[in-house]
Amino acid sequence: MTYCLGLALDEGLVLASDSRTNAGIDYVTTFSKLHVFTPAPDRLFVLLSAGNLATTQEVLNRVRRDLEQPAELGSLLGARYLFEAADYIGRVSLAVQRAHGPALQQSGVSGETTFLLGGQIAGQPHGLYMIYPQGNYFAASPETPYLQIGENKYGKPALDRIASPALSLADGARLCIVSLDATARSNVTVGPPFEVVLYPKDTMALSQRLKLAADVSLLAQMSQSWNAGIRRAFDQLPRFDWELAEPGA
Amino acid sequence: MTYCLGLALDEGLVLASDSRTNAGIDYVTTFSKLHVFTPAPDRLFVLLSAGNLATTQEVLNRVRRDLEQPAELGSLLGARYLFEAADYIGRVSLAVQRAHGPALQQSGVSGETTFLLGGQIAGQPHGLYMIYPQGNYFAASPETPYLQIGENKYGKPALDRIASPALSLADGARLCIVSLDATARSNVTVGPPFEVVLYPKDTMALSQRLKLAADVSLLAQMSQSWNAGIRRAFDQLPRFDWELAEPGA
Repeated sequence: MTYCLGLALDEGLVLASDSRTNAGIDYVTTFSKLHVFTPAPDRLFVLLSAGNLATTQEVLNRVRRDLEQPAELGSLLGARYLFEAADYIGRVSLAVQRAHGPALQQSGVSGETTFLLGGQIAGQPHGLYMIYPQGNYFAASPETPYLQIGENKYGKPALDRIASPALSLADGARLCIVSLDATARSNVTVGPPFEVVLYPKDTMALSQRLKLAADVSLLAQMSQSWNAGIRRAFDQLPRFDWELAEPGA
Repeated sequence: MTYCLGLALDEGLVLASDSRTNAGIDYVTTFSKLHVFTPAPDRLFVLLSAGNLATTQEVLNRVRRDLEQPAELGSLLGARYLFEAADYIGRVSLAVQRAHGPALQQSGVSGETTFLLGGQIAGQPHGLYMIYPQGNYFAASPETPYLQIGENKYGKPALDRIASPALSLADGARLCIVSLDATARSNVTVGPPFEVVLYPKDTMALSQRLKLAADVSLLAQMSQSWNAGIRRAFDQLPRFDWELAEPGA
């Protein structure tokens, strides 16, 4: 499984992913799911993927090739708006899935991959897009500043409570780590190392790129602090009437 | 959708459910999903359901009829062990699904229902069972004292952090409310009123039966307290190195 998420904040973007990949439950490996493209000084893209690993890698290979060779479907260099870049990724994804679709269908395997694309092209606002396996896409909004792909349920409650466009990039990174940590606790096919990148808008460069392994103290500290905080929140919940009525309560 | 859960604690049982039912996304109604049976002074059962409402109601009707009429599949009165009661519910569930199965399959509708059965028969330990639509079942254990049916993912992180057989019944009730609240926030097809019952072991009677409506202050207080506690936990997360290095941080 996989869990990736992104936050579109007033200050910029935070994108994060786990790095556990599994083919069935008994073949678990580690692959980075967070890919940064800076094909020209006027643009930066971060692409996150959840789904078929072969589809994902072929999409990435074609996207890189399209930056060097004359490209039929366009390229990240040709996009004038961020939505055009999302549209391009969607078309490449669909072309890859179509190329392998008949053989995959015969084996009953899904070649589908869903992408998150965050980034900015100079002169345009920064943004965050979800790109479906069918090639269509939509953007995060101030009302819902987060997008998730993969195993998205366990990590959603924290986002629903805390995510807001006004969060600082550092708070956004903490929220992503908390959401990843909750997911990894409840689903063993999601796990560290976690990758987190911070993009301050209009800079066309990442300000931070973190790789949090399970044995690295930052992740352990975050995880322990969050767990202790949840415990405190639980211990401070209101008592029931009947408890207050009990002697010694 | 539905979300029900139970906790098998050293002190006894806590069982809880939401009460929102939907047929498609545009027909949402309220039905109790928590049913208490005390057919004799030596036994108490609480049955929670998630799945097809018609299957659920017919199972309940047959279970009640089997207490009054000669019963082919047995009855809750005939069970000598809690697992026999779970086995009986599984057989009734399967019989109901088989009766309507062919017609449901033609319409592409699932008649499946999953049950949680908590309770005790005098002379036996209290226990909590999950009963699958296929009629088989398993019990909660000290290692995993909680069982969930329905929309189980959003409410699982809190359980994974806090659930333990050593919790008091009141703490168990608070944990169930927190888990229900998280689920209702993230999935609109799960919602209040929430029902929560507490069963102190060896008493053959519920000590508390709560119905928490959205506009009743206890639920609002729990929800606000939990939300504020999560916020505090978030605000107290460790800072990153680069934040500490920033002037004024």
